[in-house]
Amino acid sequence: MQLYFAPLACSLATRIALYEAGFDAGFVEVDLKHKRTLAGGDDFFAVNPMGQVPVLRTDSGELVTENSAVLQYVADQAPHAGLAPAAGTMDRVRLQQWLSFIGTELHKGVFTALFDPRSDAAAKSYARSKVDARLTYLDKHLVDREFLMDRFTVADAYLTTVLLWTLATGITLDAFPNLLAYRRRMMDRASVQKAISIERPLYQAEQQRDAAPAAAAAG
Amino acid sequence: MQLYFAPLACSLATRIALYEAGFDAGFVEVDLKHKRTLAGGDDFFAVNPMGQVPVLRTDSGELVTENSAVLQYVADQAPHAGLAPAAGTMDRVRLQQWLSFIGTELHKGVFTALFDPRSDAAAKSYARSKVDARLTYLDKHLVDREFLMDRFTVADAYLTTVLLWTLATGITLDAFPNLLAYRRRMMDRASVQKAISIERPLYQAEQQRDAAPAAAAAG
Repeated sequence: MQLYFAPLACSLATRIALYEAGFDAGFVEVDLKHKRTLAGGDDFFAVNPMGQVPVLRTDSGELVTENSAVLQYVADQAPHAGLAPAAGTMDRVRLQQWLSFIGTELHKGVFTALFDPRSDAAAKSYARSKVDARLTYLDKHLVDREFLMDRFTVADAYLTTVLLWTLATGITLDAFPNLLAYRRRMMDRASVQKAISIERPLYQAEQQRDAAPAAAAAG
Repeated sequence: MQLYFAPLACSLATRIALYEAGFDAGFVEVDLKHKRTLAGGDDFFAVNPMGQVPVLRTDSGELVTENSAVLQYVADQAPHAGLAPAAGTMDRVRLQQWLSFIGTELHKGVFTALFDPRSDAAAKSYARSKVDARLTYLDKHLVDREFLMDRFTVADAYLTTVLLWTLATGITLDAFPNLLAYRRRMMDRASVQKAISIERPLYQAEQQRDAAPAAAAAG
């Protein structure tokens, strides 16, 4: 398998899942600003017409997009890792519910606008107005729970990724002690530490590349 | 089964799926503005702490939230109707991909802000800026295709619901002929016609209720 990713973007969740599964996957970094692969300069729109990560190329060459589909696909290739309840069970419905909640209410409902340079202060303020209700909902759910479900699943990989973004956007979890403790626990996990240790330097390099033309222009 | 719904909200997709499946479900209208059931005045937050529809109460009394989870659940109760490819198949992954795309890129990424009275003109403008790329992607996919996949699935029920919202928000499909033809085909479908014919009057009644206090104050 091969994962098209951007550093610390939502594709981080799939990297975490791949590590949890013990898969020896390939990783192709995408320059999302220019919609090209970083190393080869290939047109990324040819891979995903929406220009978004993650894209997973399966062993049979199929391209899968959309985080919740990619994550469930990876989980189903690794039943030994228990990253998703079996397909067709009520527990799987609950997993889908969490993936959808994280994808719609948190990722797209809040963080897309906060990170998007094309959204202005009002659009960002609207996004921030939704944060409290959603974090309150999660915080209550996580009372006495170690994970979103009975054990670590791909939904935790996705939520961990989103909670990492709270740090970059200045959203504090101080009022949400269960969620704060959950984030600490997840950040201590080997797969998460490995994923972040690899992607953080790539993220910093990306920030420097993006800043370089402006600095040159300013100079 | 029992569906908590609001007129012409995204819960319409589940109603369509229930009709397609031939299920004799119950429907409980929710007053989303006051977060109460319309007939009984019951606290809807007790049903869903997020205060959102759809919520499906299963025959065993479990409450399922999040459109893509609810839709897959209904489809899996009705294998005879073919509303979703079998769980665990690559086709099911593609269905999940479409449900995620519609839920994140269209529903939450565009329409939530357009309908939300708490979002201002700038937030709405940001949402509108995303429309073209997403409709272009769909329009290209629908060249020579009758449905999103090989046959009518719950993803079509969801997309049909979202395309209905283009009418209410003044988003024209004129530049997207395949999508326009798709919407016409879907609107001609018996399950869709029945669902809209039941919910449109409820929607109009809701609009009148919401307008009434303002009119009274103005009088």
